[in-house]
Amino acid sequence: MTTLEQKQTLSEWFTNLQKRICKALEEIEQEFEHPSLLPGHFQFKSWQRDDVNSRDGGGGTMGIMYGAVFEKAGVNVSTVHGEFSPEFRAHIPGAAEDPRFWASGLSLVIHPLNPFVPAVHMNTRHIVTTRSWFGGGADLTPTFEFAEDTKDFHQAFKEACDLHDPTDYQRFKQWCDEYFYLPHRGEARGVGGIFYDNLDTSDFDHDFVFTKAVGEAFIKIYPEIVRRRMNTPWTDEDKQKQCVKRGRYVEFNLMYDRGTLFGLKTGGNTEAILMSLPPMASWP
Amino acid sequence: MTTLEQKQTLSEWFTNLQKRICKALEEIEQEFEHPSLLPGHFQFKSWQRDDVNSRDGGGGTMGIMYGAVFEKAGVNVSTVHGEFSPEFRAHIPGAAEDPRFWASGLSLVIHPLNPFVPAVHMNTRHIVTTRSWFGGGADLTPTFEFAEDTKDFHQAFKEACDLHDPTDYQRFKQWCDEYFYLPHRGEARGVGGIFYDNLDTSDFDHDFVFTKAVGEAFIKIYPEIVRRRMNTPWTDEDKQKQCVKRGRYVEFNLMYDRGTLFGLKTGGNTEAILMSLPPMASWP
Repeated sequence: MTTLEQKQTLSEWFTNLQKRICKALEEIEQEFEHPSLLPGHFQFKSWQRDDVNSRDGGGGTMGIMYGAVFEKAGVNVSTVHGEFSPEFRAHIPGAAEDPRFWASGLSLVIHPLNPFVPAVHMNTRHIVTTRSWFGGGADLTPTFEFAEDTKDFHQAFKEACDLHDPTDYQRFKQWCDEYFYLPHRGEARGVGGIFYDNLDTSDFDHDFVFTKAVGEAFIKIYPEIVRRRMNTPWTDEDKQKQCVKRGRYVEFNLMYDRGTLFGLKTGGNTEAILMSLPPMASWP
Repeated sequence: MTTLEQKQTLSEWFTNLQKRICKALEEIEQEFEHPSLLPGHFQFKSWQRDDVNSRDGGGGTMGIMYGAVFEKAGVNVSTVHGEFSPEFRAHIPGAAEDPRFWASGLSLVIHPLNPFVPAVHMNTRHIVTTRSWFGGGADLTPTFEFAEDTKDFHQAFKEACDLHDPTDYQRFKQWCDEYFYLPHRGEARGVGGIFYDNLDTSDFDHDFVFTKAVGEAFIKIYPEIVRRRMNTPWTDEDKQKQCVKRGRYVEFNLMYDRGTLFGLKTGGNTEAILMSLPPMASWP
């Protein structure tokens, strides 16, 4: 089982990763030249769980930026503990035996202003019940797809997977394609990436190395793709297409995303959970 | 049980109501004077159920208008029949015994351009399994609440209820308040109205008179409220507030609205069902 020292290490990793990602995104804001829009900066807001049940506790820090490149970027970390309600115990590995849990993770969703810069999501987490496991993923959602961006995004996460197990990438890629899918539209949310859950090889260090590699892959590839596209000129019509694509993103997150629904239904922080929703979306 | 002749009468009523509502909304478009925006007209699009199961059939007509007063107005009718899938049979009155159903109804959602004109939803329907019943409702969603509008909207539907049963209004008003509520926000969707389901006094004519009165109440009161507000000047800031309010509308429809979720999960017409979503919404 995950030791207290490992929990401390994990929580610090997620907090530090949040800082590094926010810094990487702010650097892009500084680099970007625009006649009227000013570079954005992250604002951070901490929150505590204030449940009636005193066994529930912990909290998190939301980071949000409204910038010239990133219309809305949310990068959240949280480390919480408590007890799963009876209705959830049967659905969470190891919770039927004992409802107590501990969880720590980072979650981000970025909605760029320029319709040619793809939106992105990344999440890594560690959960402890009577069992313990890692979960996470990263997926890219362009309005206008560039084969080069899709290829490089996948390659970056394949390299992270290959550090862990050569069979991971194919499985996690397929899991991502299956997960980020809107059945009522018959459409994928984006161009995929990786998705994994219940990851536990019973070697904590090995699995944590992979979790760290997923974070590093994000820092390596997403800023590179943003820099490729952020100076592409765009029209109102391009922006409208982006807003429609974002509508699909809203549909997915509110109808199918397990993390969103689970968080909202277990009394999670609504503001932090719904930070994933786009600043403007359209259903024409 | 509902006879073939009654089904025919119902289906014709809904189709005729669609025409009258669309005409009433187009008249407002014609009246409205604007230096650059042109009056909108409804476009109609018919669709057929094309399920593999040949016992499923029927179809509907979507009416949609993009206007100067009504940024997006969707008024749909459908008359369909088929069989409920095994997973739904237990949840539908009378379907456990025999999965066949027949349903006819009208559903509308209107998102005005001017943030001072309230959005509105209205729906009336009749469903037949081994049982038969009416359902429906109407609720008003202003971004900026005017007590006069709220009062008059409620009064119009109270009058419809009073034709049916003097106890209806209080029950249906409360049902509406409970139904159109976002628990994760701790917010009501709007200022309420009425909501009812499984309505069957075993007097078809009596219940149908009520259903018709709900339609008439809508035609009486909503255009009146629109005319009161459609010339109120508004700013970008007002519009942004409307877009945020619309975001809550999206959250409700995709997370909680039984009709939306039921329709999408039973292979309904996605385009018609999601016509309720706003042309532009914001999560700042």
